[in-house]
Amino acid sequence: MHDAYRRLLAHVNTVHDLGKAAAVLRWDRETHMPKAGDPARIEQLTTLRRLIHERSTSDAYGDLIEAGAAAVADTDDGADGLAADLVRVLRYDFDRARRLPEDFVVRMAETSARARTVWESARAEADFARFRPWLERLVDLQREMAERYGHAGEPYDALLEGYEQGATTAAVRAVFDAVKRETVPLVQAIAERPGAVDDAVLRQPFPVDGQQAFARHIASQVGYDFERGHLGTVVHPFATSFGRDDVRITTRWYPDDLRPALFGTLHEAGHGIYEQNTHPALARTPLAGGASSGIHESQSRMVENLVGRSRPFWRAHFPALQRHFPAQLGACDAERFYRAVNKVQPSLIRVEADELTYNLHIVLRFELEQAMLGGDLAVGDLPAAWNDGLRNLLGVVPPSDREGVLQDVHWSGPSFGYFPTYALGNLYAAQLMEAARAQSPAVDADLEAGQTGGLLAWLHDQVHRHGRRLPPAELVQRATGAPLGHTAFVRYARAKFADLYGLHA
Amino acid sequence: MHDAYRRLLAHVNTVHDLGKAAAVLRWDRETHMPKAGDPARIEQLTTLRRLIHERSTSDAYGDLIEAGAAAVADTDDGADGLAADLVRVLRYDFDRARRLPEDFVVRMAETSARARTVWESARAEADFARFRPWLERLVDLQREMAERYGHAGEPYDALLEGYEQGATTAAVRAVFDAVKRETVPLVQAIAERPGAVDDAVLRQPFPVDGQQAFARHIASQVGYDFERGHLGTVVHPFATSFGRDDVRITTRWYPDDLRPALFGTLHEAGHGIYEQNTHPALARTPLAGGASSGIHESQSRMVENLVGRSRPFWRAHFPALQRHFPAQLGACDAERFYRAVNKVQPSLIRVEADELTYNLHIVLRFELEQAMLGGDLAVGDLPAAWNDGLRNLLGVVPPSDREGVLQDVHWSGPSFGYFPTYALGNLYAAQLMEAARAQSPAVDADLEAGQTGGLLAWLHDQVHRHGRRLPPAELVQRATGAPLGHTAFVRYARAKFADLYGLHA
Repeated sequence: MHDAYRRLLAHVNTVHDLGKAAAVLRWDRETHMPKAGDPARIEQLTTLRRLIHERSTSDAYGDLIEAGAAAVADTDDGADGLAADLVRVLRYDFDRARRLPEDFVVRMAETSARARTVWESARAEADFARFRPWLERLVDLQREMAERYGHAGEPYDALLEGYEQGATTAAVRAVFDAVKRETVPLVQAIAERPGAVDDAVLRQPFPVDGQQAFARHIASQVGYDFERGHLGTVVHPFATSFGRDDVRITTRWYPDDLRPALFGTLHEAGHGIYEQNTHPALARTPLAGGASSGIHESQSRMVENLVGRSRPFWRAHFPALQRHFPAQLGACDAERFYRAVNKVQPSLIRVEADELTYNLHIVLRFELEQAMLGGDLAVGDLPAAWNDGLRNLLGVVPPSDREGVLQDVHWSGPSFGYFPTYALGNLYAAQLMEAARAQSPAVDADLEAGQTGGLLAWLHDQVHRHGRRLPPAELVQRATGAPLGHTAFVRYARAKFADLYGLHA
Repeated sequence: MHDAYRRLLAHVNTVHDLGKAAAVLRWDRETHMPKAGDPARIEQLTTLRRLIHERSTSDAYGDLIEAGAAAVADTDDGADGLAADLVRVLRYDFDRARRLPEDFVVRMAETSARARTVWESARAEADFARFRPWLERLVDLQREMAERYGHAGEPYDALLEGYEQGATTAAVRAVFDAVKRETVPLVQAIAERPGAVDDAVLRQPFPVDGQQAFARHIASQVGYDFERGHLGTVVHPFATSFGRDDVRITTRWYPDDLRPALFGTLHEAGHGIYEQNTHPALARTPLAGGASSGIHESQSRMVENLVGRSRPFWRAHFPALQRHFPAQLGACDAERFYRAVNKVQPSLIRVEADELTYNLHIVLRFELEQAMLGGDLAVGDLPAAWNDGLRNLLGVVPPSDREGVLQDVHWSGPSFGYFPTYALGNLYAAQLMEAARAQSPAVDADLEAGQTGGLLAWLHDQVHRHGRRLPPAELVQRATGAPLGHTAFVRYARAKFADLYGLHA
């Protein structure tokens, strides 16, 4: 290895380790930290963030990248071009990070931290007016951020880029419009058959220790490796990686509803499987991670929905669940359970939405974010716009802003541009699944038996092992032979819900 | 605040935060990390250690200290001289850290990491020969370290200094000799009354959930604040602090022995109470912590033994324990329980030793460390010297080196000079307790009722709040009116065990 490249790697490894240390501190903060420890923890995280930012934007680091790039260009990079990919991503990240001066980053972090606290109390008391001045400040900051990053006319592009490299607002809008066009009538047709699916079986007392045992079992069954993982308990579930051999997932336990822990664990296990299967050669570099937020979400949605809410999956695994809860599920069967976990029901809260209406919650947020950013929607008019939008899309209206515009933490982030990646994840997942079935006979054979071996082998080859080496558009094109579209999802959803609800296709 | 002092503080805070981040990573490593995560975790900890070392030894930091010191000297430092104390400690640490060049620190860390792995397998198979070449290397490194630190003729002084600032080998030896002289005959007298105390009641099946509930209860009773703490499960218990408002303790649970979890929790709670009660003004500086390892250990021993193994304590708390374990303890009473937890029994394993014989295990290690360091004892002759020493002190001989010379992790550290602080903790604890009783009537009154309020108030004033502002010798002198000695411990032990074993005083 050339010395200049070695020096670059050493720098990159150091910054990576600091980032992973911060990830451990955040994980501990959500899982075990006493509340009183938060002020000190915030100081520690701020210090780490500052050191990372310094080392990610310094002139000296820029020189290291260019020297390393020259060394890579001069050298035969082995068969696979890993060093060239790394240098490309380092240059990209460096260039982007340099566009935000340190004082802007600090201003944003401070405003966000205070806005977060205000948002919590505003939500608790359904008092949007309290949050409004903070959201106004945050929208201004997001606008400034978009200008600093730069864009070709559509400021939202600059923010979306932070989560979905290469995606444009126009392209996402086109796909989302198609999803909306196809989904809304389907949801309406389902609404005309209110008694077709009954999910009462899911809402019974389910002792938490039984839920924990089954959640571990089922996460392991779908391919999450507990030898290199850990399932923790939190209020707001997430997955995080401290290295491919230490990938944590978390969930929450509701004593009278099976769904949050069960599908939450499957969801986070999907994220975890991705991280556990990045190639070891990517370790300690920015390549060790997902291709984008949307691609990461595709892996969690794949496991949660396309696998975990499928009929053969429950045909295979319902008996084990039944053994954990004989009193609650003794009279149920796999088919009834499969139907129950797929009930479609327009509702107010995004994180509780079913597989079909979920995307519509995202479309609403995507449109409102753009309107606020572009100045077409004043923050003061946001609650009304929210309620109108939800009524149009789903036919429901929140009783208060707590169940409406104040429900999500993201805008206090402020992370405009993040919401769309949730729906992109659903679309990617359907498109990848369709390609996997078409390309590998083992995929269907295993899924029909409730197993994921064939699917994971294909995903490993097409998605997991590449980490962040492929930009999302290239990854999807290579894996599926087509760019991102809405059709695979629509085909999947139509077939599934027509069958479930007895609709004419 | 003067700018130069502000700049110094900012630097110190950064280094402190990195140290606390490392502490979180170590805590997680022992409590939740999957074993497979260890290589990445070691890299992350090594990176943090390196950044801390760079920032703790750089010329630029030296300049910051001197500029800060000048500013402090120029300024009226308020009433209490905190800034002056901080500058003194920063200078002391900087000067000491600069004596070890980075390459020596790395060599030591690498040798230690490999030696630790060898030690684990050597211990498992009772094979000292395997560990011997590594211990030889470590002794050489400790000798080199002592020379690099510098000393006035006694190399061990230079290592002891790292744990007990200002202590000399000669002074510790004099106190330990006195302890040995007084303790050995007492242990022998007790050995002549083998049936006087029966501890069978402690070795029964005790379900772990009951142990956990009582451990939390009793830790809280002695003053550990769970609002600013957390009790975790580990193989090798420890306490750690991420800030005074987030102080973690850990323990292990034996399903058929009440002692390890019960007294282990009280021990770590003692460490935790110290950290939780340092003055808030010391936060994010090296002053936020214990005065020395020995003083820290005095607080854990105080809670574990002087409080937790006292008669009034169990008179007050045995009923609650009995309620957790009615089947096991229904036929027992507080007096019998008090006697059981104070059984004196010469044994092989330090961490399982009773209050009286514990110090003799330490005296043995203290003497062997000096002999190895001074070249008077070849590492190859260590097992024989260990066994001879134990026979002379306690009349027992290990069946193999697993229960003998290989039992402790410390020498693979290598942390020569650390062992004595365990016994110093016992001596400090007795001396502090005697002073507390003499100075504050509330101490005895509360202890007689099984409460620690009076004692903690005194300790808070004399010990806790000062953090590391007072060197250990000054702290003890101020609190007790005398330098460290053996007499308070001997008085305490003689009275307690004469009563328990019906000896003539």
